[in-house]
Amino acid sequence: MSSEPETPTTRIATSTRDDVFIRDKSLCRELVGKLTFTEMIVFQMLGRRPSPSETRLVDACLVTLMEHGMTPSAVAARLVYSSAPEAMQAAVAAGLLGVGSRFAGTMEGCGALLARIASSAHPDDEATRIAEEHRASRTPLAGFGHPTHKPDDPRALRLLELCDAEGVAGANVGALRRLANAVDRIYGKHITINATGAIAAVLADCGVPYEILRGFALISRCAGLVGHVREEQQEPTLRAVWEAAERAVPYSGQAGK
Amino acid sequence: MSSEPETPTTRIATSTRDDVFIRDKSLCRELVGKLTFTEMIVFQMLGRRPSPSETRLVDACLVTLMEHGMTPSAVAARLVYSSAPEAMQAAVAAGLLGVGSRFAGTMEGCGALLARIASSAHPDDEATRIAEEHRASRTPLAGFGHPTHKPDDPRALRLLELCDAEGVAGANVGALRRLANAVDRIYGKHITINATGAIAAVLADCGVPYEILRGFALISRCAGLVGHVREEQQEPTLRAVWEAAERAVPYSGQAGK
Amino acid sequence: MSSEPETPTTRIATSTRDDVFIRDKSLCRELVGKLTFTEMIVFQMLGRRPSPSETRLVDACLVTLMEHGMTPSAVAARLVYSSAPEAMQAAVAAGLLGVGSRFAGTMEGCGALLARIASSAHPDDEATRIAEEHRASRTPLAGFGHPTHKPDDPRALRLLELCDAEGVAGANVGALRRLANAVDRIYGKHITINATGAIAAVLADCGVPYEILRGFALISRCAGLVGHVREEQQEPTLRAVWEAAERAVPYSGQAGK
Amino acid sequence: MSSEPETPTTRIATSTRDDVFIRDKSLCRELVGKLTFTEMIVFQMLGRRPSPSETRLVDACLVTLMEHGMTPSAVAARLVYSSAPEAMQAAVAAGLLGVGSRFAGTMEGCGALLARIASSAHPDDEATRIAEEHRASRTPLAGFGHPTHKPDDPRALRLLELCDAEGVAGANVGALRRLANAVDRIYGKHITINATGAIAAVLADCGVPYEILRGFALISRCAGLVGHVREEQQEPTLRAVWEAAERAVPYSGQAGK
Repeated sequence: MSSEPETPTTRIATSTRDDVFIRDKSLCRELVGKLTFTEMIVFQMLGRRPSPSETRLVDACLVTLMEHGMTPSAVAARLVYSSAPEAMQAAVAAGLLGVGSRFAGTMEGCGALLARIASSAHPDDEATRIAEEHRASRTPLAGFGHPTHKPDDPRALRLLELCDAEGVAGANVGALRRLANAVDRIYGKHITINATGAIAAVLADCGVPYEILRGFALISRCAGLVGHVREEQQEPTLRAVWEAAERAVPYSGQAGK
Repeated sequence: MSSEPETPTTRIATSTRDDVFIRDKSLCRELVGKLTFTEMIVFQMLGRRPSPSETRLVDACLVTLMEHGMTPSAVAARLVYSSAPEAMQAAVAAGLLGVGSRFAGTMEGCGALLARIASSAHPDDEATRIAEEHRASRTPLAGFGHPTHKPDDPRALRLLELCDAEGVAGANVGALRRLANAVDRIYGKHITINATGAIAAVLADCGVPYEILRGFALISRCAGLVGHVREEQQEPTLRAVWEAAERAVPYSGQAGK
Repeated sequence: MSSEPETPTTRIATSTRDDVFIRDKSLCRELVGKLTFTEMIVFQMLGRRPSPSETRLVDACLVTLMEHGMTPSAVAARLVYSSAPEAMQAAVAAGLLGVGSRFAGTMEGCGALLARIASSAHPDDEATRIAEEHRASRTPLAGFGHPTHKPDDPRALRLLELCDAEGVAGANVGALRRLANAVDRIYGKHITINATGAIAAVLADCGVPYEILRGFALISRCAGLVGHVREEQQEPTLRAVWEAAERAVPYSGQAGK
Repeated sequence: MSSEPETPTTRIATSTRDDVFIRDKSLCRELVGKLTFTEMIVFQMLGRRPSPSETRLVDACLVTLMEHGMTPSAVAARLVYSSAPEAMQAAVAAGLLGVGSRFAGTMEGCGALLARIASSAHPDDEATRIAEEHRASRTPLAGFGHPTHKPDDPRALRLLELCDAEGVAGANVGALRRLANAVDRIYGKHITINATGAIAAVLADCGVPYEILRGFALISRCAGLVGHVREEQQEPTLRAVWEAAERAVPYSGQAGK
C-alpha cells in the first residue's frame, strides 16, 4: 500500500443540489444516456472514456466472467438468500466473498507475470524463466490450466480472437502468447491458457492496472449472483442443497447412529 | 418465498468440456462478443435479450446508480480494504452490505406501489389512496423525497425524459406520474420523485420484477465500489477517516480525560 | 431507529497510551483476568456486570446456539473459505450472513411477543389473543415448532430447567409458558417451544433487550463457524459439496446433454 | 490447504430427533449448563475440554481482543447497520471483514515465528536470526510495536503476567520472550510486545494451532461489534460519521465549487 497521506482527497465524485459530478462530468447532462454501463465502469475507475474497441473487449470480458452455473460462490449466495431473504445484499455479498484467490484471484497473479514479461528487454527469456521457476517449484501458474476445459479453454480462445479482431492486442496479450509458448516447451505438454489468463491480458491491454483486475470479476459475478438470487426467489434450492451437503460430508462420530 | 420444490433445477447455466451454456446459448459462440454486459445482465436474469431501447434504459439506470461519492457504503468498503488488503472481495462485499433498506431498498417499496396502481381498474384513485395512507401514517413514501436534491432530483428527471424519448414508458412510469400528482395534491406541496423512484418505474417497464430491483443497485454499486477500492490502493484514506470518526463520535465516559 | 443526534457519543471505549477503558473500567486492571468472556459480553453491551446466575444462563444460551452441524450457514462459510483461503474473516462473515430472519431472526419476533404479554395487565388473555391471531392468519409463531425436534425441542426444555434452577425465570419466561399453554389450547395440539423461543425468554429475563437478541446468535455462531473453518483447513469439503450441489440442482435446459 | 479427500467427513456435530451431538457429547445432557461459552469454543474447535487454567487464559485473551472503541471495523459495522437495519447480521459481518491482515492477522504471522523458535534446537539463535532478517528487510515484525501503546502495550504485559500466574506459559511464551530480547538487542531500542503478539503466544501454549489464531479475534470482535450495533440502535452515528468522512476526504476536482 502507498504510504498514507495526511489529507487524502477523492477524485471520484461530489454532489450539489442540482447534480452529481463524477470525475468532473455532470452525471445528468454528460453521462446518463451518453455512456453504456461498461463505458461508465471504465470511466469511473480509470478517469478516461474507453475507445469503442476497448469497450467491446471489456464487455466481452465481463460477459465471459459472469456465469459458470452452481459454483461455490453461487451456492453460498443462494444458501444465504434463503436463510435471510430480508437482505438480498447479504446473499450477493456472501457470494462475492468466494471470488477470491483460488478462482478469480489468479487474474492478478497472471497480470503481474505478464507485466514482468512486457517490461523486460528480453521478453521471451523472461517468459522462459517464469515457466522454469514455476515448474521447478511446482507452483500453479496463474492463468494456465483448467480442470474441465481441455485441451483448451474455449473462452480464452474466443477472447484472444476478439482482441486480435479489434486490434487492441498489445504488450500484454503478446506476453501471454510468449508465456504460453514457453509453458508448452518447458512442461513438455500443452497447458491451456484459461479464461482468467486471457482476461488478465486483454484488460491489461485496455489499460487496467493488474492490482484491480479482480474487481472486474467482482462486477461481473455480482450480476451473475443477482440472477441466481432471482432464480432462488422463484424456485428455492435451500433444502435440496442443505440435504445434499449433509450427505456429502457425513458425521464421522459414533453418536446418533 | 415460494414453497420449496423437492427437486429444484436451474435454468441459468451448465458447462461442458468445450463450452459454457447460459440459458441454452453457447457462451463462446453466441454471447461473448455479441452482447454487451448490460444485455447479458438482462439475458441471464430474465431469460430474454432486451430490445435496443430497453438496453439504453437499463444502461442509464446502472450509470445513474453507480456513484454518489463518499457514501456510507463507499466508506465501509474503503475502511475494510485498508484493514484487509489481502482480500479486495471483502471490501466490496462490506460496501454492498450497506446497500439496504434505507437507501436502495426503497426501489422495491416503490416498485410494489407502482404495481398496485398499474394493476388497478382506477389507477388515479389507487394513487390517491396510497398518498393518503402514507400521509396519515407519516410513513416515508418510497421513491419520493431527497435531502439535498430539491426541488427536483435531476437524475429522476433525466431518466424519465430518456424513457419517453425511447418510447419505453409504460404502465409503471405512468403509475409513477399518477402517484407524483396525487402526492403533490395530498401533501399540499411538491415532493420530488427521486432517483430510486424513477429507476423502479423505468426498470419495471423494461420487464424487471420489483422483487429483484435491489439487484440492479447491487450490480451498479459493486462497480462503483471497485473504483473506490482502486483509489484507496493509490491514496489510502483509512487513517484520515478513522480519526474523523473518532472526533465525530467522542467517548462520553470519564476515563482517559 | 431513534432520531439521529447532531453530536452522538459512544460510551463503549476509549484508549490512552497506558490502557484501554471500556465503560470507564480499565481493561488491563479491572477486566482482563477478572471477567469471563461471557461476563465481558454482557458488560460491554449492557453496561453492567451480570450476576453469577445470569452468567450461567447466558453461557447456556451461547453454548446452545453454537452448533447444529452442516447447516446452510456452515456450508456457506466452508465454501467461501476454500475459495478464498487468504481471508478467514470472509468465510466467517459469509456464514454469519445466513444467520437471518428464517433461523435466528425468530428470536426477535418471539421476544417482541413475550414483551407484549409481560407488559399486559391480563397476560393470559394477551397470550390467547396472540395464539388466535397467528392461527387465523396462518403466520408462523416465532419461537414455536421445529421440523425435527418433536414432540419437544430438548434444548428448550434444558434451558428452561436451568433457568428455574438458577431462580432467574421472570416475566419473560412466565410469558413464554403462558403462550405455550395458549398455543396448545388454540391449535388443539402440542407445538414445542423451540430453542430460539427459550433463548429469547431466558435472555430477556437476564435483561437483554429483544432488539439485540439476534446478536447473541451471531456471537455464538461466529465461534461455531471458526470451528468449521478449522476443520475445513484440515479436511477440505469444497469439491464434495460443490459436486453435491450440482447434482442436487441440475440444469434444466437442453444444452450440453 | 491439504489435498482434498474424495469423501470428507465432519467430526463436529450431528442431530437426532431428541438431541444434538457435538463431538459425540450430548448437547443437552453433557454441554449446556456444564461448560462455559469459552470452554465450549475450545471444545468444539479442538475436540478437548480446556483445563481451568487454560480456560482463564482463553477468557483473558477474548476479553482483551474485544474492544478498542471506534475502530475502522466498528465504524464499518455501524455505517452498514444504519444503512440496512433490516439485517443486523450484515452489519456485524461487515465489521468482521475488517479483521484482516493489517490488524488481527498479525497473530498468525507471530504464531508462525514462535513455532519456528519453539521447534528449533537453538531457540535463541533462531530468535536472533528472525530479528536480523526483519530488520535487514525492513519488514514489520508481527506481534511487535504499537502506534500508541508505548513504551509497552499494557495488554501484553497483563496477559503474560496472567499466563505466568496460571502456570501455563510454555514453549511459545518462552519463544516470545526470547524473540523480544533479540529484538531489543538487534534493533538497538525497546520495541514492545503488542497484544496480538502476547495472545498468539498464550493461545499457542493453550494448544491452539497458529493457522486458526485469527478465529479468536473474530469471535471476540464479533461480540464487540454486536455491542456497537446495540449502541447504534440507541444513538445512531451514521449522519455524523458520513459528514466527517466527506470532510476528511474532500473532492479534489473542479466541479460543484
